[in-house]
Amino acid sequence: MSEGLLFIGAKPFMNYVTGAVLQFTTKGASAVHIRARGKFIAKAVDVAEIATKRFLSTQAKVQSVMINSEQFKNEEGRDVRVSTIDIVLVKST
Amino acid sequence: MSEGLLFIGAKPFMNYVTGAVLQFTTKGASAVHIRARGKFIAKAVDVAEIATKRFLSTQAKVQSVMINSEQFKNEEGRDVRVSTIDIVLVKST
Repeated sequence: MSEGLLFIGAKPFMNYVTGAVLQFTTKGASAVHIRARGKFIAKAVDVAEIATKRFLSTQAKVQSVMINSEQFKNEEGRDVRVSTIDIVLVKST
Repeated sequence: MSEGLLFIGAKPFMNYVTGAVLQFTTKGASAVHIRARGKFIAKAVDVAEIATKRFLSTQAKVQSVMINSEQFKNEEGRDVRVSTIDIVLVKST
């Protein structure tokens, strides 16, 4: 009953979909977290939807979606806020 | 106990933040749905985060986030899939 983590960035879209699918089909994960920040949030939602609906329709589903914000200082020392998303996929029972 | 709906598109970011805030502060909404499709999903998350954390920190919070897909045919008659998000803000109790 392991949990996988996939952080969405600039790599090709299907890399992430494949990564999510393999977590369930060959690595025996019971849950996979798909996380992203800022402009990659829409890509994370696409990855979760394609992985669960096209590739894992009988094997996994979206369990929960959470959004949040992270604060940090940029190179000029100014406070910057960025939105985050955490989508949890779980094995269908 | 009315519910507001805000569909996120190409208008300036702060238009949507103001729209969400006014639903609670002057229109007496008990809940506001923030919805978006495709590339506007990240903007919808930003609107929800800024509205609740900067402007409504004591008055409203994110209650739930749901993602889904819509299928439709494009101009050439091909099936197209687009991801959607529905973020529900509710009055803090």
